[in-house]
Amino acid sequence: MEAFKSSEEYLNELRARALCPKGFRFAASALEFFPLERPVAKALPMKISLILADEPTESFAALLTRNAFPGAPILLARERLKQKTIQGILINNKISNVGAPGGLDAARDLTARASTLMGIDAGQLLASSTGIIGWSLPVDAMAQAIPGLVERLGMDGPVEMAQAIMTTDRYPKLRTRKLGTGSIMGIAKGAGMIEPNLATMLVFLVTDIDLDRTQLERALRRAVSTSFNTISIDSDQSTSDMCVIMSSRKAQSVPEDEFVQALSGLCEELASDIVRNGEGTRHVIKVRVSGFGEHCSAVGKAVINSPLVKTAMYGNDPNVGRLVASIGDYLGNEGLALEMDALEIRLFGIPVFQSGAFRLDQEKEQIIAARLIEASQDPAKGAFPEHDRVVDIDIKHGTHPGSATVMGSDLGYEYIRENADYRS
Amino acid sequence: MEAFKSSEEYLNELRARALCPKGFRFAASALEFFPLERPVAKALPMKISLILADEPTESFAALLTRNAFPGAPILLARERLKQKTIQGILINNKISNVGAPGGLDAARDLTARASTLMGIDAGQLLASSTGIIGWSLPVDAMAQAIPGLVERLGMDGPVEMAQAIMTTDRYPKLRTRKLGTGSIMGIAKGAGMIEPNLATMLVFLVTDIDLDRTQLERALRRAVSTSFNTISIDSDQSTSDMCVIMSSRKAQSVPEDEFVQALSGLCEELASDIVRNGEGTRHVIKVRVSGFGEHCSAVGKAVINSPLVKTAMYGNDPNVGRLVASIGDYLGNEGLALEMDALEIRLFGIPVFQSGAFRLDQEKEQIIAARLIEASQDPAKGAFPEHDRVVDIDIKHGTHPGSATVMGSDLGYEYIRENADYRS
Repeated sequence: MEAFKSSEEYLNELRARALCPKGFRFAASALEFFPLERPVAKALPMKISLILADEPTESFAALLTRNAFPGAPILLARERLKQKTIQGILINNKISNVGAPGGLDAARDLTARASTLMGIDAGQLLASSTGIIGWSLPVDAMAQAIPGLVERLGMDGPVEMAQAIMTTDRYPKLRTRKLGTGSIMGIAKGAGMIEPNLATMLVFLVTDIDLDRTQLERALRRAVSTSFNTISIDSDQSTSDMCVIMSSRKAQSVPEDEFVQALSGLCEELASDIVRNGEGTRHVIKVRVSGFGEHCSAVGKAVINSPLVKTAMYGNDPNVGRLVASIGDYLGNEGLALEMDALEIRLFGIPVFQSGAFRLDQEKEQIIAARLIEASQDPAKGAFPEHDRVVDIDIKHGTHPGSATVMGSDLGYEYIRENADYRS
Repeated sequence: MEAFKSSEEYLNELRARALCPKGFRFAASALEFFPLERPVAKALPMKISLILADEPTESFAALLTRNAFPGAPILLARERLKQKTIQGILINNKISNVGAPGGLDAARDLTARASTLMGIDAGQLLASSTGIIGWSLPVDAMAQAIPGLVERLGMDGPVEMAQAIMTTDRYPKLRTRKLGTGSIMGIAKGAGMIEPNLATMLVFLVTDIDLDRTQLERALRRAVSTSFNTISIDSDQSTSDMCVIMSSRKAQSVPEDEFVQALSGLCEELASDIVRNGEGTRHVIKVRVSGFGEHCSAVGKAVINSPLVKTAMYGNDPNVGRLVASIGDYLGNEGLALEMDALEIRLFGIPVFQSGAFRLDQEKEQIIAARLIEASQDPAKGAFPEHDRVVDIDIKHGTHPGSATVMGSDLGYEYIRENADYRS
């Protein structure tokens, strides 16, 4: 992604890339009033939004959280994804509808109200919620807002949708691909420190390319494995994570491989957006691991999830000791051997560990610190990404098999402010 | 522990409790000059210290980190713990001697120099280092300081030792027990957010009670399982964690069970001290889990290690949603079922989840928030613990078997400042 100088420039870019697959309409709205009884929550209005296909479609697929404490929307989706068709998704932020008394009834009720108003069959809408866990949805207030939302169908576009599903995200996340005579459009919601923070990740993908359900399922699974799974979903997951794709089948088909490639690319960009645009993220950290067999991804995540590594990166401190400590901790717990002499670690391509010992001197540390500063951005600048640079870490365990790439973010004051001082 | 009003009051209490088992001498010193070439490190002088038994003893035991990237002192200890006897430990802070070229030679060299000066057999000293990973020990400067250190043998006491081994610790940690005609004394070093932060934990225990090596090994293992293992060592571990016990056997023996009980109590207090006295810790969180079979400890650690739970506690926010999300994440990943109706969660004894749903209202939230404020302390106050209150969390999964207690700390600005702005 290019560098942006302002949020207007970024929004203009989003509008330019916001091509919309045929056969879908969108509506985004904000509740004017939200009865916030609890003193701890931010006084932001709830936003509800709607994705609707012109007709019910048999061509859809979804991946849902495996969290053992799933929210009501996940429970509802498990039911409705078994249906022959679905037609759309009703989304809200602010309250995640998890574990609240009567939550499933609330999700059924609200989707039924919207369906009736739109004249579509009951049960054709999925529900999706993100926000505070444990509180009940303000069903009455939301019900009152639904007629206005339905009226907006077709008046809002992908950019407004991407904005409506944000919670603590710094800017909207929207990516698209043209493919043959059709296109794919995806929006995402999720804060940067997704793993293991359990910040909810929502991803909604729509396409008009003519593929059947089996093809979509296969494509989604493959695309997610190289994108959202490198940051979250599979191993660490919130109560409400949801990644849905629907096709209107209004454009021509393309070879499945081409679709997989396009969808994977789009999802990888969205995954990177999620990490970059998170709660106070200054650095996106990309760790490539090889030589630990099936443990490569876990080794990478041990690094990415170490608070000591994360805080060092935040402080532009090339503290590589914390890095090897986190690798050693993981391997030690798994009872796996580390061939010290075979281990090679590079930061920004610069070798810092080789042939059994650290290869560090003051000059190298200064060069790496300068690269860290270069790769940082200032979350205080707010509503646009400054650039797409990342902190590159390579961990190589000789010529042993296996490889994986994982992405994560640093840990700094803004994260604490966001998560300690306010409810998000 | 009582509440202290000043660091003088706390140090006086430590001096009062600093009874010293017969047959040991201590020395604590600070290098006047430490050649800090790197601009990122705090300009604190390195401290070296020494524990010495009057004679070599066959009665010792130790638990060492299983981190696959162990420091040179750990490698040396693995050798020397196989010996028939050991006589003491040479300790330094500031640099952990991990992964530095020639690190093992440096540890051998420095312990040999000290041994020669004291006229004891070479190889009778363990080495123990904590601090920055990857840098080399300033061997020459340390060698120059060793004669002065040896001269101080017997002039410093347990309090000075507890102070000498600190790094980012806010105050020294020292606990003792009288038992029969003898006693046990323990000091510890370790920052609060030990797990999974890999901050090094060092624990040195000395006693004069007459037990043999087998008895000491058994007792140490049992004491650690209910103390340091509830916060660290076994599952998450730094490159240098070390817990050593030595007996001079100069007092009468006691029944092994009595010794285990006394040692366990002492270690539990030290473990609690480690958590409380850590990097910017405002709240100590104690989680009791039952009903998840062998997974109880892991469930507790999933809660304790969730950054979202930790930041909420820091902010005195009873955000119980984050709590259940972290439980559900762990169980989901392990493929374990959660009986929602059997789940009961209490904060400070107050039920917040029961019979399948959250039981929260504004009044309850205000009461819990007030209790959180009560249980907090102000790290800015510095060098003494304010009280011993903890955040009590109970998680009960029906009447299913299994139980465990784990301890952890919150996550706030001071932690970031400590770990991002400076090297520690």
